[in-house]
Amino acid sequence: MQSETQTATALRDRSTRLFRGLQDLITSSLEAVDGREVFREDDWTHQQSGGGITRILQNGCIFEKAGVSTSAVSGALSDLLAGRLNTDAKEFYATGISLVLHPSSPMIPTVHMNLRYIELSNGDAWFGGGADLTPYYVFEDDARHFHLTLKNICDKHSREYYPHFKKWCDEYFFLKHRGEARGIGGIFFDYVRENLESFFLFVEDLGNGFLDAYIPIVEHRKNEPFGKPEKNWQLIHRGRYAEFNLLKDRGTLFGIETRGRTESILMSLPPEVKWVYNYQPALGSREEELLTVLRHAKEWV
Amino acid sequence: MQSETQTATALRDRSTRLFRGLQDLITSSLEAVDGREVFREDDWTHQQSGGGITRILQNGCIFEKAGVSTSAVSGALSDLLAGRLNTDAKEFYATGISLVLHPSSPMIPTVHMNLRYIELSNGDAWFGGGADLTPYYVFEDDARHFHLTLKNICDKHSREYYPHFKKWCDEYFFLKHRGEARGIGGIFFDYVRENLESFFLFVEDLGNGFLDAYIPIVEHRKNEPFGKPEKNWQLIHRGRYAEFNLLKDRGTLFGIETRGRTESILMSLPPEVKWVYNYQPALGSREEELLTVLRHAKEWV
Repeated sequence: MQSETQTATALRDRSTRLFRGLQDLITSSLEAVDGREVFREDDWTHQQSGGGITRILQNGCIFEKAGVSTSAVSGALSDLLAGRLNTDAKEFYATGISLVLHPSSPMIPTVHMNLRYIELSNGDAWFGGGADLTPYYVFEDDARHFHLTLKNICDKHSREYYPHFKKWCDEYFFLKHRGEARGIGGIFFDYVRENLESFFLFVEDLGNGFLDAYIPIVEHRKNEPFGKPEKNWQLIHRGRYAEFNLLKDRGTLFGIETRGRTESILMSLPPEVKWVYNYQPALGSREEELLTVLRHAKEWV
Repeated sequence: MQSETQTATALRDRSTRLFRGLQDLITSSLEAVDGREVFREDDWTHQQSGGGITRILQNGCIFEKAGVSTSAVSGALSDLLAGRLNTDAKEFYATGISLVLHPSSPMIPTVHMNLRYIELSNGDAWFGGGADLTPYYVFEDDARHFHLTLKNICDKHSREYYPHFKKWCDEYFFLKHRGEARGIGGIFFDYVRENLESFFLFVEDLGNGFLDAYIPIVEHRKNEPFGKPEKNWQLIHRGRYAEFNLLKDRGTLFGIETRGRTESILMSLPPEVKWVYNYQPALGSREEELLTVLRHAKEWV
């Protein structure tokens, strides 16, 4: 038990350093891709212990709103959370990186990545996270590129990761009340408690591979033409993103319940959204094509 | 017990008739006020038993999105809901009217009213509901008019209703994660189980008094000038409305969990919303005045 705790503590520091390094790497790369706007940084302190660094870029050339946050907080576990985690531990430590990029062009997909490492005071510890893509129009080669990049990272560590985490992602990001997935998926994992040392290396590779999975899609689609109808569809479809984050997202609800910094938690919400009653795309339209794809999980690679 | 059940069943039918009549009265009055658009109606059937009538007016002269719905559904009580209601009843019957009006002008407040009557198969029955106002700019006389109209309706039935239900409303519509109320309140009540016969008469008066509470405010503010900055503020502040409805609203979460018709449940969401990271109104501005008012419950009458 003693050695378990020591391992966990070393992982805590390594994870926190990894996430901070990724934040620097990713925000500087995204600034280069955007070419117009830069990230603005807010450092904040958690009411119990620790804090975070929230970086936001708004109204850029490519990104309408991009948020890349890290946090490392510790504190007492509320009864509600202890009950939900089914643990008798009294304290938690949580460190993570979370990013959501909302491009201005409806031809470029929204993307999300989260990597987190959590320790409880009884020695329990796990990794969670993933990356997933939310397009407004279906470009099969983009979906394949995103999934293939993630699969290659997974396969380096275990041939079982991609099929397992891909399925988990399809299930987790399914909006039952809409009968639709939030997007075309990616990978998702949570409560990974075994072989933490080697899993850390996978998490590291995933974090470092994020830009390879996403930026080529941005470069490929940034000059794709679009007009008001496509922008309008993007605003309507973004409503699903807001619904997911506020109704279902574990990170958002965890943050709200543990009284984290609201603006850092809700940075993931789209910059602009429309809710049009019972909007139905025209039969045979590209918008309807997206909804058809979102109704059933698909193997992209 | 037998007579209790009979009373409840008669109330069930009277409540459903009341709500349907109110829906007709309110939608025809709102069409007259709007002067341009009319309500479109969708009848739907609940997957268990019953259904509803959803009426929506969009892109009107006054109302950007107005939804007025009634429903009367029955079915098996899920374990989740039975646990939350702390009941051993197996079936429920729920009838209600729900309306949310989002005006186009930021000078006219958004308004919400809900009236509902619920029966369980073990004879338990209660009323819930209320009405509350969400302005984007503070007009004290509007807030006073709204509250005074509600208070007069309350006082006709019991001098205790208004102070009790007003406080309940302030508490229920407080967004802890924002440290702000959703709006300037009104009245809210739930699980009212005593004297159902006489409480029905109060619910009837409240439903019939809704137009008196709200329409004079619309008429008073509809020619108030505004520009892009005020419209932008409305879009940003509407984000709080979406956050409340998706994170907290009992009716929304009940509807989603009981697998009601999604478009009817989410008709309450604003037509257009902006989430700007960490938006802070200028010191001394009218926008800041609103946030100051929303931080602490206020006695308007």
